[in-house]
Amino acid sequence: MNFKMMRYITGQLLLAEGALMALPFAVSLIYGEFSSLWAFIIPMAALFILGALMVVFKPADKTLGVKEGFVTVGLSWIVLSLFGALPFVISGLIPNYIDAFFETVSGFTTTGASVLDGAAFGKLWHPELSPESAMMGMRGVFFWRSFTNWIGGMGVLVFVLAVMPQQDMKSSRLVHVMRAEMPGPKVDKIVPTIKKTAAIMYGIYIVMTLACTAFLLFGGMDLYEALTTSFSAAGTGGFAIWSDSMTSFYGTVAHPEFCVWVLSIFMLLFAINFNLYYLILTGKALSALFSEELRWFSGFVAAATALVAFDTYDKFGNIADTIRHSLFQVSSVISTTGFATDDFNLWGNLAKTTLLIIMFIGACAGSTGGGIKVSRLVIALKSTVEEVRHMVHPRRVKTVHFEGKAVDKETQRGAFAFIITYAFIFFASFLLVAIFDGRSIETTFSAIAACINNIGPGLGDVGPASNYASLSYASKIILSFDMLFGRLEIFPMLLVFSPAVWFKK
Amino acid sequence: MNFKMMRYITGQLLLAEGALMALPFAVSLIYGEFSSLWAFIIPMAALFILGALMVVFKPADKTLGVKEGFVTVGLSWIVLSLFGALPFVISGLIPNYIDAFFETVSGFTTTGASVLDGAAFGKLWHPELSPESAMMGMRGVFFWRSFTNWIGGMGVLVFVLAVMPQQDMKSSRLVHVMRAEMPGPKVDKIVPTIKKTAAIMYGIYIVMTLACTAFLLFGGMDLYEALTTSFSAAGTGGFAIWSDSMTSFYGTVAHPEFCVWVLSIFMLLFAINFNLYYLILTGKALSALFSEELRWFSGFVAAATALVAFDTYDKFGNIADTIRHSLFQVSSVISTTGFATDDFNLWGNLAKTTLLIIMFIGACAGSTGGGIKVSRLVIALKSTVEEVRHMVHPRRVKTVHFEGKAVDKETQRGAFAFIITYAFIFFASFLLVAIFDGRSIETTFSAIAACINNIGPGLGDVGPASNYASLSYASKIILSFDMLFGRLEIFPMLLVFSPAVWFKK
Repeated sequence: MNFKMMRYITGQLLLAEGALMALPFAVSLIYGEFSSLWAFIIPMAALFILGALMVVFKPADKTLGVKEGFVTVGLSWIVLSLFGALPFVISGLIPNYIDAFFETVSGFTTTGASVLDGAAFGKLWHPELSPESAMMGMRGVFFWRSFTNWIGGMGVLVFVLAVMPQQDMKSSRLVHVMRAEMPGPKVDKIVPTIKKTAAIMYGIYIVMTLACTAFLLFGGMDLYEALTTSFSAAGTGGFAIWSDSMTSFYGTVAHPEFCVWVLSIFMLLFAINFNLYYLILTGKALSALFSEELRWFSGFVAAATALVAFDTYDKFGNIADTIRHSLFQVSSVISTTGFATDDFNLWGNLAKTTLLIIMFIGACAGSTGGGIKVSRLVIALKSTVEEVRHMVHPRRVKTVHFEGKAVDKETQRGAFAFIITYAFIFFASFLLVAIFDGRSIETTFSAIAACINNIGPGLGDVGPASNYASLSYASKIILSFDMLFGRLEIFPMLLVFSPAVWFKK
Repeated sequence: MNFKMMRYITGQLLLAEGALMALPFAVSLIYGEFSSLWAFIIPMAALFILGALMVVFKPADKTLGVKEGFVTVGLSWIVLSLFGALPFVISGLIPNYIDAFFETVSGFTTTGASVLDGAAFGKLWHPELSPESAMMGMRGVFFWRSFTNWIGGMGVLVFVLAVMPQQDMKSSRLVHVMRAEMPGPKVDKIVPTIKKTAAIMYGIYIVMTLACTAFLLFGGMDLYEALTTSFSAAGTGGFAIWSDSMTSFYGTVAHPEFCVWVLSIFMLLFAINFNLYYLILTGKALSALFSEELRWFSGFVAAATALVAFDTYDKFGNIADTIRHSLFQVSSVISTTGFATDDFNLWGNLAKTTLLIIMFIGACAGSTGGGIKVSRLVIALKSTVEEVRHMVHPRRVKTVHFEGKAVDKETQRGAFAFIITYAFIFFASFLLVAIFDGRSIETTFSAIAACINNIGPGLGDVGPASNYASLSYASKIILSFDMLFGRLEIFPMLLVFSPAVWFKK
């Protein structure tokens, strides 16, 4: 294990996190929330000092193998969340550190599961109502909360890769770091250097986030609302700045229905493989449109929207409202964002079941979304069909095609191993949360599904109209790790906890 | 495809089914239920005539490959159920043919999910209360119902193999038929010939069933009660002759608690690999006891019983009752029998969640139980651990050991493909039943789990105190096929529906 290089990368990451905190700090400053400035100054100081100490000695050997890359990413995300929780605790928004850790993991992993209740949102919107926060509004802290969604969406190490000096990365095989942090069964550089690949990805990400912000401004949101909402949508995170997600902003925004349509479309756009945007930019729009994963994804979205619309038509009474709410909710859940324009926990059983099932499908590979991923499911499905065909025609050569290319055995085995491990972690968490909290099967099952797939709200006690605050600390820690397992696609976190990594035989 | 040999085997099977119906026919005769004799005479006549026509011409080529073996088994079980449903319809116990088909599939697959309500059981116990059945008791028909559990447990084709003339089986590779019908990731002959292997299996099965019957007679049941209950327990089927499974027999049997203990132990015995009994018979008891699968299975039973007991102690109030009910229910669910001594749908959420999870684990390979099977889960888990180890030490040779032997790649891939296909079928059924019936997530999810794992009662609307009668016909057909997929471990049924089998390119 190249511990020096792992230390060096983690140091870079702490510096990056410190730098990123400058943005919410500026927001607090702009809104004159002077007493909550400490909420950023203290962690920033800690991050800069610790980060500087860790990067001051550059390692001579910069190579990083698969194992080191994966472990570095797994550890980084834990460290990142440990520090990211500090602004919530220091500002007093979430005084308990475990709750704050849960909220931060939920933010970075783009889950969007929250422990905040209506009173906490009151500090954002009605600081005069809560006397202890009369002197300190929470705009900066809530900005940080939404910003964690945005940072986690593309991945903070991808950000580090984009800004790290090129000479540090030569022949260092940092591609494993990118692979561990970017979702999908197979991640490749789209251009020859990692630095440039990471920079292009972040470039597309920033432009699309700003486009979404512009549309929301046009729909009547103010800059703060539009920016924080775009951050959460872009990262497919789903932290909203209204206590009931998107259900009450109907009263406060000039053109709420327009905003809902904008978000429905942008959530889907952020759930698509970003490589496709690069293809479009390089003039290959046609091959982007005919992407096999995109076609499957569109099919799932259409089918799920039809089922949900069918089941909710009686509730909404007219086609326009039904389609808007149904598409928004399907788009929100399949992109694993988790916004809600209505309390879908009160919808019919068919609609709820459909939403529960698409929680597992999730977004496309190479997007900011979570879940098992469309391509991984399709590859696993095709591999299985091929196994069955092989039983019928034993002399047949087993080949699986995806996106017009043969899928190698390693990728197929990886997809299988992923789904099996995922199922084991799922059922282990299911049992543990049942032991610690004993909630209904609907609540427990959907809480795990919403966390491991990085969606946010589940059903029952953790539905969109409630939050995760009432669960035990033990369950919150389990769910935090489920979110990390989900966001990093299991193996990086599994390696962190694997004794074989840390102890030599 | 060797259609002639497939036709010949299916014919043998029809004759066997006709012969097996002689037993319930005799029961009807003994109890003087003359008007329900036709319920057996008509199907027996049909089975004998059709069967005789199909076996009269012996095929010259008797070889049967993997594909033919699997398809034959898949088709046979459908045909078997189509005819097996007739006594229910003709006797008037279940007048609707789709309901009767569901009940029969549920019987043969040892699921035990029922459409019968209390009124139907009234015809068994209080014929005087239902005027239309005043002339016809239902002891013979209920005997057939329990007997389908017993037949399905070991497999009707294994029975055919045990009684077929040896010269018919020489070099015919009928081992594939046995493999398709016997559960587990890897099925081998325990003695050189299949006929003898099948005969030994059935011998052990019959002796153990009779032992269970003897114990139940000792516990105060009459011969009819003891025999039908033993049939359902031996096949891990769970069809009970009381309308509320095992909850009301406390009042009618002399030593009910003794009977509960007997059944708890026998359900576990029937859920263990029958090869172990052969090992004990041949003097290798020690290696049987140290079977890895048995140790895992015992661990799961102990852990689940502890969790359920912990959660139900408040309800039962004393340790003896708590342990008895908890062990019985765990034993009933993990063996996939489905008996209930209490309405576990009213138990706490931890107990319900535990039961729901062990539904998926299921019994050991080579037993009469269903579920994913302990050995398959352990092999999949170990293969996954090995994949992760391989990421840490890329030069390491990947080997998975089970029962002290290296597991070949084919078996590992088979276990993976099984679990993935299983998950796809599960979620497809989940969505379809939600579309057709729109019940709560708990009901729909547990109904699929209880059917595909061949358990019987689920939770919510299909809990042990209710039945499947209220579901739509579409859902009943879907669930029937889920039961068949579960009992035959997916691939035989998948091949029946695979166009590649039926159409040449």
